[in-house]
Parts: sequence; C-alpha cells; structure tokens
Amino acid sequence: MSFLSQSMNIILEDAVKKSTDVKEKVCEWRSPEELKELLDLELRDEGESESEILQRCRDTIRYSVKTTHPRFFNQLFAGMEPYSLVASVIVEALKPSLYTYEVAPVFTLVENAVLRKMMELIGWEEGGDGIFCAGGSMSNMYALNLARYHHCPDVKEHGLSAAPRLVIFTSEECHYSIAKSAALLGIGTKNVYVVASDERGKMIPSALEELIETAKKEGTIPFFVNATAGTTVLGAFDPLEEIADICEKHNIWLHVDACWGGAALMSDRHKHLLKGIHRANSVAWNPHKMLMVCLQCSAFLVRDKTSLLQDCHSSRASYLFQQDKFYDVSYDTGDKSVQCSRKPDSFKFWLMWKALGKGELKQRVDRAFMCICRYFAEQIKQREGFQLLMEPECTNVCFWYIPPSLRNLESFLLFLLQVAPAIKERMMKVGSMMVGYQTHKDRVNFFRMVLVSPQVSTEDADFVLDEMHNLGKDL
Amino acid sequence: MSFLSQSMNIILEDAVKKSTDVKEKVCEWRSPEELKELLDLELRDEGESESEILQRCRDTIRYSVKTTHPRFFNQLFAGMEPYSLVASVIVEALKPSLYTYEVAPVFTLVENAVLRKMMELIGWEEGGDGIFCAGGSMSNMYALNLARYHHCPDVKEHGLSAAPRLVIFTSEECHYSIAKSAALLGIGTKNVYVVASDERGKMIPSALEELIETAKKEGTIPFFVNATAGTTVLGAFDPLEEIADICEKHNIWLHVDACWGGAALMSDRHKHLLKGIHRANSVAWNPHKMLMVCLQCSAFLVRDKTSLLQDCHSSRASYLFQQDKFYDVSYDTGDKSVQCSRKPDSFKFWLMWKALGKGELKQRVDRAFMCICRYFAEQIKQREGFQLLMEPECTNVCFWYIPPSLRNLESFLLFLLQVAPAIKERMMKVGSMMVGYQTHKDRVNFFRMVLVSPQVSTEDADFVLDEMHNLGKDL
Repeated sequence: MSFLSQSMNIILEDAVKKSTDVKEKVCEWRSPEELKELLDLELRDEGESESEILQRCRDTIRYSVKTTHPRFFNQLFAGMEPYSLVASVIVEALKPSLYTYEVAPVFTLVENAVLRKMMELIGWEEGGDGIFCAGGSMSNMYALNLARYHHCPDVKEHGLSAAPRLVIFTSEECHYSIAKSAALLGIGTKNVYVVASDERGKMIPSALEELIETAKKEGTIPFFVNATAGTTVLGAFDPLEEIADICEKHNIWLHVDACWGGAALMSDRHKHLLKGIHRANSVAWNPHKMLMVCLQCSAFLVRDKTSLLQDCHSSRASYLFQQDKFYDVSYDTGDKSVQCSRKPDSFKFWLMWKALGKGELKQRVDRAFMCICRYFAEQIKQREGFQLLMEPECTNVCFWYIPPSLRNLESFLLFLLQVAPAIKERMMKVGSMMVGYQTHKDRVNFFRMVLVSPQVSTEDADFVLDEMHNLGKDL
Repeated sequence: MSFLSQSMNIILEDAVKKSTDVKEKVCEWRSPEELKELLDLELRDEGESESEILQRCRDTIRYSVKTTHPRFFNQLFAGMEPYSLVASVIVEALKPSLYTYEVAPVFTLVENAVLRKMMELIGWEEGGDGIFCAGGSMSNMYALNLARYHHCPDVKEHGLSAAPRLVIFTSEECHYSIAKSAALLGIGTKNVYVVASDERGKMIPSALEELIETAKKEGTIPFFVNATAGTTVLGAFDPLEEIADICEKHNIWLHVDACWGGAALMSDRHKHLLKGIHRANSVAWNPHKMLMVCLQCSAFLVRDKTSLLQDCHSSRASYLFQQDKFYDVSYDTGDKSVQCSRKPDSFKFWLMWKALGKGELKQRVDRAFMCICRYFAEQIKQREGFQLLMEPECTNVCFWYIPPSLRNLESFLLFLLQVAPAIKERMMKVGSMMVGYQTHKDRVNFFRMVLVSPQVSTEDADFVLDEMHNLGKDL
C-alpha cells in the first residue's frame, strides 16, 4: 500500500475515529520538556524512512489535544464534522489559492454563493460584499480598516500622521482583536474607548452615547462602534437595535462581531438575539465556531455595494490582476484582501451545508442552546458545591465549583481563586476533559463551559460536573 | 464503506493521482456562467444524500485548476509534496489552533523547532524570534508593524495621529503587500518611497541612500527598508550587503522579503544570492513556494531577542493567556500574533523535512535553479520566435513568444501586447498548461515561466515551448 494510503488510514483511525471516541482521552499531557524528548524535533540533513514518518504521524496525533473529542470544551470551537473535513482535505490536495478566477474557478464561485447566503441570513436583502479571512480577528480588523476608509479615504494614501484623532467604541467584554487591530492600524489602543456593560455583559447604550459625546468634546472623530453578538466569556449579546440608533444618529460605522453568536441567525427561535444586525455596516461571523466548520472559516461581510472593500484594499498588481484577460475580471476577487495567497475556507462550509441542509444546522443550534445548555445550567443549580455566575444567554455556561472545604468558610474568595487552576491541572493530567477558566472583573477564577458540538450529550454534561467534583473535592 | 473512506479514496484518486498526472489536463475551463450552472451552488433547507455529496466532491475536483500538475507554472507555488499533504490532513482532522501550549502542545514545539532551524539558515547564530503567518503578505505586514513599534513604541497606544511622518523604502519591483501593509497600518501608500532598480530588477543602493537623504530633508522619519530576495516577476535579488550598510548607517530597520527566494538558503551553491541576509532585522520566507510545502506556510522571523514581537502584538486576554497555569506560559505563543485562531503551518514543513532531510531539499533547489531553469532559458535562446527578457537569476524565466506573422514587422509591439493574452486564453481552453503573463515597465506582455517543482522535467520544458508555438503560430 502506498505511503499516502497508509497515512490516510492512520489519520482516519487515530485522528478521526479514536480522537472523537468518548472512551478515549482528550489529551495525553506531557510537559514541554518531556514532549521535546519524545518527539525528537531536530531537523537534520538526512531524511527518514516511510515507516519512521508514519510513526511520527501517530505520535503527533497521540500527543495532540483532541479538540474534536466530545469532552473538549476549552475553546469556542469543538467537534468533528465529516463533510467539512472532506472539503478541507480536497482543498489541501488541490492547493488552490483564492485570488483569480483563472486559478480557483470553483472556489471563487462557492465563496460568492456562501457570502450571499450569509448576507441573506443577516437580512441584507439587497446584498452587499464580503470575503473570507484567516480567522475572526482578521475579519474584525477588516471592519476597522473599511470604516476608516469610508470616513477618511485619504488615509490609504496619506496615512494618519496628518489625520485627526479617530476614536473607536467597544464594550469592555469585546474580543481582544479590537484592541489588537487598533494598535496595528495605527489608531492606538488609547483611542479604543471602552463602553461599560451591564451585569450580564451587554453594552449599555446610554453609556455608549455618553462616551461618543465625550469623545466629540475632546475634538476627536468617533467613527467606529464594535458591538458584540456573543461575547467570548459570558456569551452576551449587545443590544443591536439601540446601538444602531445611536450609530445612525452620530453617523458612525456599526460593526457587529458575531464571530461566536452569528450561528443563532440559523435559528428562528434564537435569531432575536441579534435583532437589528441588518442595520450594521459590517459583520464578522465564524462558521468554524458553533457551526463546526473545520478551522478556519471566518466571513467578513459588508453592506456597502459601491466596491468599498475593493477600493480600500486594492493595489492592482499587474502580474496577478491583469485587465486584458479573456474572462470577466470582476471574478478576480483577490484584490479585496490584504492577503495574497488565501485559502478557500468557504468551501468547507458550503459542502457541509449542501450535505446537511439548513434544517439540520438550525436543529443543531437549537439543540446546543436549549437542550444541552439549559440542562447543564439546571444541573449546576441543583448540585451542591456548584454555582452559576448567571443564567446563560448563549451556550457559554460560567460557574464555580466550590470544594467542600470551602463551602462553610465565610471568606473563601482567595482560596476559590486557586481552585479552577488546580482542577484544570488535574483534568489535563488525567486527560478526561478540557474546560477553560478565567477571572472576570471582580469575579475570581470560574469555569467557562462552552457547548458547541451536537455530539455532546446530557451524559457528557453530567460527566463534566461529576468529574469536576471528583478532581476537586479534596482541595 | 464509510463516507469518509469513500471520499478519501476519491481525493487520492482524483485530486492527487489524476491531478498530478502529466497526461491529464491542468484545467477544465468553464466560464463563470457555465460553471455556476454545472455546480448548482445554491444552499437550501434540505440536505443531500451521501452519494450526491460524493459527486459534488468529484465535480469540485474536476473543475478546479490542478495547481499540483507538472504543467502548472502560473504562480510561485506548484507541485505535490505527499509528506506535506499528509501533515496537512493531520492538521485538518485534529483541528488545532496555535495559541496556547495546553491546546496545541506538539504544534507549539514544532513551530519553535522550525523557526530555530530557519534562523540558523539565515545565519542568526544567536537565534531570534518568529511566528508563522497566514501567507507572505501578512509576514511582511508583521515586519512593518514591528519596525514601527521598535522606532516609536508609543504608536501602539497613542496611534499615529500625533506621530511624525514615517517613511518606508522599497524597490519598484517589490511585492504589492508592502503597499497594502502601509495602507493598512495607517502609514499611507504615499509614504512608501519607491527606490529605482537596475535593468535586472535589483534595488540600486545609491538610489536608496539618496532617497533616504531626501526623506530626511523633508522632515520625515525613515524607519523601514524592504529588500526583496527573489522578486515576483523577474526573480531579482536585491544586494543585501550594500543595503544593510545603508540601513546601519541611518539606523533603519532592514526587512528582507525572501518569501520567494529564501529557498536558496538551503543550497550552498545558491545562498550567495542572499549574502548579507543575516544582517536583516527581520525576514519573511514562504516554504510553501519553492520548497513545495502545502499552502500556506509563511514564516516571519525577527533577529530581536528582547520579546519585541510579543510586546508589539500582545493584548494579554485573561481568558486565553492566564498567568496562573500549571506549566511554563512562555510556551503560550499566541499573543505574538494578531490572529487569534492560527493554523500550525510549520508542521507541514517539519514533517516533510523529517522525511526528505535537508539533503533532498537542497538538491531540489539546485535542480530547479540549474538543470530545469538553465535548460529552459537555453531552449528559448535557440528557438526561433522566442526571446528572453534577460538571463534568469532565480527560477523565473521571462520571455516573449513572437508569432511568425510579427517576426518581420518593424514595429510590432502593439501587436505583441495582445499575443500573450490570446495564447493564455487558448492554453486554458485546451487545458494543456498554465503560464502567467504581464507587462513590466515599458515591456509589453511577456510570459513568466516559474520553475518550482522537482516533478518538472526537461520534457515538460520542451512541451511548454512547443505548445506555445502551436497555440500562437497563427496569430
């Protein structure tokens, strides 16, 4: 059997079947020092035999974290979607790069079709424009750049050194990519004005408006509001209608970071969480999160139809975007991107959607929101020693586990701070599950359970709580 | 047989074996309108059967361009490297994201090992820092941002609106990502000062120094020089030693865009082309180009060892980069990136290098430079109707094909302008090969043949010239 066939068999067996098997471990923890020894990372002059390489494939899979395992809850992605995986492998084998129709005809048309469908779900009846980016941070960065270009097109040529101070607004709960983008784009993190959010993590519209007024009084130019639909930690949805009113009033670009919560648009029951999103100027939405498309798949969508995206990013390289081609060069979409080679991530979403239909995608979203997430939250309320931070709005469930030794102490916060990291260490060393933790404002370390995958069952939810108690009860 | 196994068989047969078979077509041209009909792109409520999805996989492969085919010469990547493909598929199946050691232990260590080895080849004996990015444009963008942070760390917080005018220098032959990055970072494309290059496409050092002096007289701050090692069209290598002298004298950050030409560092015979690269402050190098790693694989490398990369990009998100973890958090490298989820592209290079050894990689580079490229250039010189633009320095061979009807005309440039697009249309409709064309300064449309893959033979080279004559002789 050829090397390729042998390795595909290993991958299907070890990286797909075993990795998603609930009876197997989520991770096989080794410290960096141990793992370096085990892997023999050094790159040498001599090559190795095929059987040695096959063993390296097995070892890589063995010591990698199984993010597709039903008990991986550590990030905002999880699970294994076979149709999407097949699409990924097609892409890897074909090695397309998405800049011209001549090099990527199928993937160019697929991207257009997927973007169109996503815009329809957002409610942009007259369409718009868009592009898939290498992750949500980049989609948010595109939004910021496009908004700036819309307000001050001169910046593209002349830069910011002679420009007025441009100011961005976002809630304290937003993703860190907003600050990173502000730094990268030369706007500066101090010009990111942080709007207060309520106790559920939602941006307070009146606080936004006050801050806009303050910024104007300071002589700055408020030009960009980032609203979040599904915050990273608490899963909060900012009130889009009220924010849109304010943005319209002050003529400010409204971007909605729906990277996480955008999936709710698939569901008639839950899309109300994003009510008003059609009023946004731009949206970022990652199907690689709750819709389980293989990493990465992030759409940047913009309501504008005057070629703003192209005008903002284009540089018209003569060696790639020749204008004397024999076909309609409006299909050469690469100049809308700041990347040059770009992967056709939309295809992984497209093939999966074709296979499952919107019906199944909708059901999955509903199931994550209603069955598993509700069940898990109820369990926490019923079990001794567990405490919910708040009722979940998205599928993030944030909670504390309080070991018996702390339950009757009056002042246990300092101790509780250390519980989550200690349990996390134990769960990784046992390899039974992975759940993330963090502090949040004045709240000490708590767990954030993220329910993404339809492969997760109520038994898995029970297991998490049982295991957390097992791992932490002696602390 | 399961759906996954069936689709893997289709992929191995159609997207790997047939796609790389010289007897098959490079592309099956369809216009956008025809292809839309054939593909049925619409996303519906209902899903489709597995057999329908398998047919969609076959169609996607059929109508996609075979960039791995031995007669695909259209871009700066080509060919099929099975070890790298296997690594890609492992990555797709495991769905890792590279930000924390806890989620991507193997890939974190692999990235460090590959970066270290690449720095060794550059000649940074004391190491440095680096990160893999989603393509060379992003690596070049990182360089610009890092250089700016090095010169004006305040910009990260305060932005550019109160900063002096910062100026960049690059040759007119550079990649378009330099201008795109300058626009994105708020520096502005007018602050990209374009340095003249000589007739071979190499930056003229004296012209650089003059322009720096001019910029200083204008009261601007020259802070970044981009030198290109292997330009996109002509394959020229800028004279790095002389440029480094100038940068040191004026205290300017030197970045070398070696995305294309970096592969020559693998070869003792050809690394002289990048002599002086060890003096650069940063380097971008894409192993997905001449080293044939699956798309994408682009390294950004920086000589600094004071955590400049981390300091420049970090935002210290508390939900990802917790400082109270049980392992050494210096292995959590994600905050060096402006991406959040990031694919472990280095693994595709690592596994391939492990299998082939540096010896084989070196031989491939030598073969591309010396055997195939030299042979092809000689053939052009010997054949009637073909004309070389210049002797190749890299593995780009630029040439005109002059149809018999034009050979005896005195003034044929206007006609020649139309020859390459016409031949390109015919070659795509026949599907026999793909070679790119462009204009360049006052040179009318010529072909740029790029020799990347070791699968290319002298027969393939002969075929290209024969076919070009066949397709164009009646023009």
